[in-house]
Amino acid sequence: MKTTFYTATTIDGFIADEKDGLDWLLTQPQDEGGPMSYDDFIKDVGAIVMGRTTYEWVRDHIEREGESWYYDMPAWVLTHADLPGIEGADVRFARGDVREVHAQMAEAAGGKDLWVVGGGDLAAQFAAAGLLDELVLSIAPVTLGAGRPLFTQPFDLRLVEHGVNGAFLCARYEVVGAR
Amino acid sequence: MKTTFYTATTIDGFIADEKDGLDWLLTQPQDEGGPMSYDDFIKDVGAIVMGRTTYEWVRDHIEREGESWYYDMPAWVLTHADLPGIEGADVRFARGDVREVHAQMAEAAGGKDLWVVGGGDLAAQFAAAGLLDELVLSIAPVTLGAGRPLFTQPFDLRLVEHGVNGAFLCARYEVVGAR
Repeated sequence: MKTTFYTATTIDGFIADEKDGLDWLLTQPQDEGGPMSYDDFIKDVGAIVMGRTTYEWVRDHIEREGESWYYDMPAWVLTHADLPGIEGADVRFARGDVREVHAQMAEAAGGKDLWVVGGGDLAAQFAAAGLLDELVLSIAPVTLGAGRPLFTQPFDLRLVEHGVNGAFLCARYEVVGAR
Repeated sequence: MKTTFYTATTIDGFIADEKDGLDWLLTQPQDEGGPMSYDDFIKDVGAIVMGRTTYEWVRDHIEREGESWYYDMPAWVLTHADLPGIEGADVRFARGDVREVHAQMAEAAGGKDLWVVGGGDLAAQFAAAGLLDELVLSIAPVTLGAGRPLFTQPFDLRLVEHGVNGAFLCARYEVVGAR
């Protein structure tokens, strides 16, 4: 079992614009069966975790588009706020230590992998607790100049795989440790 | 003739730490003859330009290490401050419009390429004026969480080449235009 921060990012290290927008991402061509694709990734994932902003983005998007919750596996949302759930979604709200949440996720995943969906601060919290194994990045050919940061703490990593998928440069990094 | 922002960056889009430090960069293994290497790049460069912070970093580094100025071609430094020159260096201080500086550089380069050394704000000024053709990035396997930004404006690019050089993921992007 491993824990992965799998995300899209801009060249300049933003995972959303200043208004949490993803227009820069959703307009990029992608090959669904290509290297480091979402389909390949998600089939090995047994539990996911996200922060409040990511959860609210997904909830708003689903409501606006009339879509259903995307995920079959249990999802943790780390937040101090009282947030509404989503119909048909196994969402477990938690506050506090990422270590407890990670232990609960690992138990629920039954040997499958764990996905830190975002944001960058939550991923860095997992890394700082020694609980993040890898970053898998789909780097869109875009700069934003400002926005939500990819990662909020200094870490050393090691490039273990790379490739191109549609417009994206994709890279898999092992987390080595805090700098 | 083309104008290139050739630089190292972290995964999260910083070209120096908050104190302008490059420890995260100078400790990385690199293959000097490898893909998108500095040696291959610099041989086609006929003029360079940098901002004040970059110039002062180089000057301080040279003085501290007892080194000589690195560059054979004329160098422009864009600054509003009165800065000392460097012995043996063809440094031309300029203030104001990047268009004028670009025209002077192009004339001096005699058909060779132009290099925007840094920082990210200066590179973005060239791009905003329609004068930047490409970004060539050596992405170190590091996050810093904070520091000097790679690029300060929203732009669309296109990935045209990629490869691995030592610890770095390297990528060449054409500048498509402002977003």
